[in-house]
Amino acid sequence: MKDFFKVMDLDQVLAFRSDFPKVGTEEIPLTAAVGRILAEDVRSDMNLPYFRRTTVDGYAIQAASGFGASESNPAYLTVSGVISMGESPDFSVGPGKAARISTGGMLPRGADSVVMIEHTEALDETTIEVYKSVAPGQNVIEPGEDFQQDEIILSAGRKIRPQEMGLLAAFGRETVTVYRKPVVSIISTGDEIVPINQRPGVGQIRDINSYTLAGLVREAGGTPLGFDIVRDDYNALLGICSEAVEQSDMVLISGGSSVGMRDFTIEVLADLPQSEILVHGISVSPGKPTILARVGDKPFWGLPGHVVSAMVIFVTVVRPFIEHATGLSEKDHRALGIPARLSRNLASAQGRVDFVRVRLVPKEDGLWAEPVLGKSGLINTMIRADGLIEIGRDTEGLDKGEPVLVMRV
Amino acid sequence: MKDFFKVMDLDQVLAFRSDFPKVGTEEIPLTAAVGRILAEDVRSDMNLPYFRRTTVDGYAIQAASGFGASESNPAYLTVSGVISMGESPDFSVGPGKAARISTGGMLPRGADSVVMIEHTEALDETTIEVYKSVAPGQNVIEPGEDFQQDEIILSAGRKIRPQEMGLLAAFGRETVTVYRKPVVSIISTGDEIVPINQRPGVGQIRDINSYTLAGLVREAGGTPLGFDIVRDDYNALLGICSEAVEQSDMVLISGGSSVGMRDFTIEVLADLPQSEILVHGISVSPGKPTILARVGDKPFWGLPGHVVSAMVIFVTVVRPFIEHATGLSEKDHRALGIPARLSRNLASAQGRVDFVRVRLVPKEDGLWAEPVLGKSGLINTMIRADGLIEIGRDTEGLDKGEPVLVMRV
Repeated sequence: MKDFFKVMDLDQVLAFRSDFPKVGTEEIPLTAAVGRILAEDVRSDMNLPYFRRTTVDGYAIQAASGFGASESNPAYLTVSGVISMGESPDFSVGPGKAARISTGGMLPRGADSVVMIEHTEALDETTIEVYKSVAPGQNVIEPGEDFQQDEIILSAGRKIRPQEMGLLAAFGRETVTVYRKPVVSIISTGDEIVPINQRPGVGQIRDINSYTLAGLVREAGGTPLGFDIVRDDYNALLGICSEAVEQSDMVLISGGSSVGMRDFTIEVLADLPQSEILVHGISVSPGKPTILARVGDKPFWGLPGHVVSAMVIFVTVVRPFIEHATGLSEKDHRALGIPARLSRNLASAQGRVDFVRVRLVPKEDGLWAEPVLGKSGLINTMIRADGLIEIGRDTEGLDKGEPVLVMRV
Repeated sequence: MKDFFKVMDLDQVLAFRSDFPKVGTEEIPLTAAVGRILAEDVRSDMNLPYFRRTTVDGYAIQAASGFGASESNPAYLTVSGVISMGESPDFSVGPGKAARISTGGMLPRGADSVVMIEHTEALDETTIEVYKSVAPGQNVIEPGEDFQQDEIILSAGRKIRPQEMGLLAAFGRETVTVYRKPVVSIISTGDEIVPINQRPGVGQIRDINSYTLAGLVREAGGTPLGFDIVRDDYNALLGICSEAVEQSDMVLISGGSSVGMRDFTIEVLADLPQSEILVHGISVSPGKPTILARVGDKPFWGLPGHVVSAMVIFVTVVRPFIEHATGLSEKDHRALGIPARLSRNLASAQGRVDFVRVRLVPKEDGLWAEPVLGKSGLINTMIRADGLIEIGRDTEGLDKGEPVLVMRV
């Protein structure tokens, strides 16, 4: 069985992403768009703003009318009107004139700037004193200053945050085309695994991986699809796997740590139509015995059974495949690591990438990453961890104080 | 109207959180729990694992049987059985004996460790050679090593990540009690604001804030509740505000930048039953003219109309109130800023806190925060930004290269 192992480097495994298609697209209401990935280039159909507007409360004037004005030598201007919000003023402002305007109001013809109300005093109904001069364009947003007409304001592959929602609203997009959420099948295997509503007997353990993986799939922008636990039986496994491939965009099997189960997984993968095993083992720790197959055009993962190993492989390997499927632009991939310093020396084997769980500890002199050591079968280590750090395959370890990048988990 | 302004420091404003109650709790299926805040202390009702299990494939032995074993001087052991997954072995392993076991299997009585299959060779059906010794307890997880029976495994106030879901699954929790998602009413005001399905006329602008705020509420763990745009009219505003207070846990009004509207907001807040204005102005930029009132036991916010100001105030001031309402534990508040260095000098006025939009730029020598300058009425500055940095009220500015903490937006 060991013959099957063709251990590959992490980068080689990640490169298989481009072998798989993106999921299709769907049109959804803008109100539901936060966190989704845009599947269209969005072009502006007008200037934003559409008109010259003010950013303050005050008086719209010709800047020249106030030049040289000061506390001791105010300029005296005549108020020629009040600008109503949401309306186009039907008068103009000439030299020596001023028009009362509120934040967001449209400047009248003639006016090129707005003096703040705090820098004026009304002497009577029609006369104000101005204590401070303004430059042309001051306290004003020009038409198209935010976005010009006919430019691409957002590109496909962009993750929609609240501000992108706001921008789409500004251009009247009630619906938006996004990539569909990939459906990810999750199958737990093993004769020792019982459903969580069952009290485990001696030798048995509840199905943890289905839950951690479902949570991770959801966080990665996918929709988890659960299946019954599969016991150590070739036909049962083949049946569920066929169904899972049919019903989803990606399949995750975890566990199958018994020899029989692992053999069955390989057999089933080989027997599914149009299947090819791409990866059988990755030179990472934890999580080395990971399997990746292509079934039709869908990725099919065999994840390790240990809860920590399955989570680490998900975060570092599977998630990039889900992100690829959802169309997330690489250059827009803002999941930057958190810079910190390592709190102690860490040894590591050369020839493989080590992922180490860490806690983030803010101190006077910055952020420290404190390794959480422990067996990869213990979920408490993930409960105590805030993230993972990566120790490269060509390093023997990291020294205390070295800078590291922490991937949140 | 300026008389109303009692500008307060950010810390004073945030301290009002404790004046408001948490929202109630609800019981939800575990599968829906990711991202929610736990509202109960969860106690373990059994040891995890429940039995002594192995973390590798191999042979369960008494460690003493293999002491001194090496490639050149292997130990010879007799195979006395095979352990089935999910079952309690009905035999024991004595000195000189071994039992075939798979990862996750239960150790038989007598055995105290597991030698990995890679370090053994089967000579025939009943005899193996062992090439490497193991220590007692090696490759074994003891009962209760992950979690002990009757300890608090998760405390109320904890945010449920995928690993907390997994842990709850391990203890058979099909449902879990979490804080309800606070319902947050969002009201846009202003005669210049039109719904997004309407093409704005000259002087008008589409309702952006309702969308950015709805996205932010959702990201903060709340449920946004939208209302129609309110025009410059006391009775209309009073009606909608009363309805919003009734239907939700918190109210956000944005805009009302016209003088009339702002006066109305204050009047309406004063006229709502059991209301008290707590804050009228915060010494921050942008977002100074922010209002906070208590109406009954609910926070009622008057946010600035500028899109950037409203977003910044939400992220830095309103969100902590939502997190308080959802029961998020302060000490478990893991939203640490991202350490970076400032790419240029930044001036700042003393006596107020400045929030500056920044882009995160990874370079050879670490992560840099590059200020995105621009008027707070321009949404493009938030589109280009990855986060905010804070310049304290007692500093005149920050120098290029200084360390900053970036809050993601």
